[in-house]
Amino acid sequence: MSENVPPNDSKSASAFNSARQTAVALVRAQLDDFLNPPKGPEKRLVEAMRYAALDGGKGFRPFLVLATSAMFGVPQAQAVRVAAALESVHCYSLAHDDLPAMDDDALRRGRPSLHKAYDEATAILAGDALLTLAFEILADGATHADANVRLALVASLAQAAGRQGMVGGQTLDILSPDLSLDMADLSRLQGLKTGALIGFAVEAGALLGAAEAAQTAALKAYAQELGLAFQIADDVLDVTGASQTLGKTAGKDVAEGKATFVSLLGLAGARQEAENRAAAALAHLAAFGSEAEPLRQAAQFVIHRKN
Amino acid sequence: MSENVPPNDSKSASAFNSARQTAVALVRAQLDDFLNPPKGPEKRLVEAMRYAALDGGKGFRPFLVLATSAMFGVPQAQAVRVAAALESVHCYSLAHDDLPAMDDDALRRGRPSLHKAYDEATAILAGDALLTLAFEILADGATHADANVRLALVASLAQAAGRQGMVGGQTLDILSPDLSLDMADLSRLQGLKTGALIGFAVEAGALLGAAEAAQTAALKAYAQELGLAFQIADDVLDVTGASQTLGKTAGKDVAEGKATFVSLLGLAGARQEAENRAAAALAHLAAFGSEAEPLRQAAQFVIHRKN
Repeated sequence: MSENVPPNDSKSASAFNSARQTAVALVRAQLDDFLNPPKGPEKRLVEAMRYAALDGGKGFRPFLVLATSAMFGVPQAQAVRVAAALESVHCYSLAHDDLPAMDDDALRRGRPSLHKAYDEATAILAGDALLTLAFEILADGATHADANVRLALVASLAQAAGRQGMVGGQTLDILSPDLSLDMADLSRLQGLKTGALIGFAVEAGALLGAAEAAQTAALKAYAQELGLAFQIADDVLDVTGASQTLGKTAGKDVAEGKATFVSLLGLAGARQEAENRAAAALAHLAAFGSEAEPLRQAAQFVIHRKN
Repeated sequence: MSENVPPNDSKSASAFNSARQTAVALVRAQLDDFLNPPKGPEKRLVEAMRYAALDGGKGFRPFLVLATSAMFGVPQAQAVRVAAALESVHCYSLAHDDLPAMDDDALRRGRPSLHKAYDEATAILAGDALLTLAFEILADGATHADANVRLALVASLAQAAGRQGMVGGQTLDILSPDLSLDMADLSRLQGLKTGALIGFAVEAGALLGAAEAAQTAALKAYAQELGLAFQIADDVLDVTGASQTLGKTAGKDVAEGKATFVSLLGLAGARQEAENRAAAALAHLAAFGSEAEPLRQAAQFVIHRKN
């Protein structure tokens, strides 16, 4: 299937990177606005939230929200709010994952992780507050005029982020050194841990834009494959990349005895599987026209990225 | 003002305790239903959520939701869902507060705290999932037929629980050994840390029941005073109670050098202040009739309770 993924030509890579950087800047400005430093001693909390949410990040999830929203003519201001909520959840999960009791990672996005820059208590609380902020953003009338759309966003994000989504996947991940995971198990784990939020990213655009059910289903199927391709590429980079390039500690999963797509498939096999998943993602976009081109570029990005 | 608080006569105490136990049982059954143990290895997460949310607890917040809802003729099933969401947030906050990096407490509700019964990573994740669950519950159509009411609940809970509410207060609490807090500072801290969720409890009943603005304002003012009375009584019990009776470690705040209402006012002064706050809480209920009797009983409970 890999011949279905076009080579990463410089024109589409450039368009993708430009759109991604735009998404990063828009979401950053939105979160900057939400997280105005308050007066009083609790400002340390908001400073920690800003540290976790405003700097770095590839902007992959914000890009997906904006690109999918644009396909359905959603006003950019609405899409940016939802992307900011999603980024807030993503960054809370990184802050908690990096804690000593979890993955114990001192490096994130090329800087000290949140609990190293502040302290563990502040990292726990800032994560809690970022998760809470996401729902505050989504419930606000500025996110969409239709109350039912806002509720659908709240419900979808809660399901994607909670026990049956991201947190469930993170639980499996922590238990995984003691489990004998095969490809199906690992795919399910990653589908929960990273796939659920990537699924929310495209579903959010469909919800904001009142997409037809078939379109939403196609986008969610695309996101599921894209999320796997993304994670498989992550495992490849964890083996082949340097910490400096990655901005996080390389080789950790292997050192901890966790199953990875590379440990199950080998390096060449994992690369091929990432190509296969990206091709499958593209196939789900077949019914869309040129408006889905940014999503197609994203599928190329995930398997060709260097960090 | 203390003469405004009637003595804790056995009839009203009995009525209150009965209503509180009913609230506990209803919310427990609701959360039991939400947290059906799933298949698969991530069931450890849901078991930890059940440990944190289903056992023990005085049911003070669930009682307030149900009592306020009943004042406005809200169907009990709706009130129980909202009370379960609130209890989920309350229990997540206890699980995170007890962590070694936070208050480092091994005992909660007479049992090992969550990270002692499981492990730190599971306690962090179960807390995260309980917080997320609360918004999933509120957004669901079964909570109220009117989408705008559900959104108002989501927004209010997010504000009460987040950086400008409970988490902000918890941040202040952790910083407090290094701050010189006076009565105004400590009242503000506790207003955020515990008062915000107690305020949500009564606001939720008003939202579900489409209360008039003046009624909602009176109830929120009641809750603010009630929350302070509750916390002052907590500080008194922290000095006078035994860990066995309290079900949590006694004397911790004082040992950690945190300002408490007892350290600022002395034991007799703190008891008097709790009475004053309870009397002020009662005064805000003056415009209500007998339908507010359970809330009046709650004000007596907070200053007469033994644990």
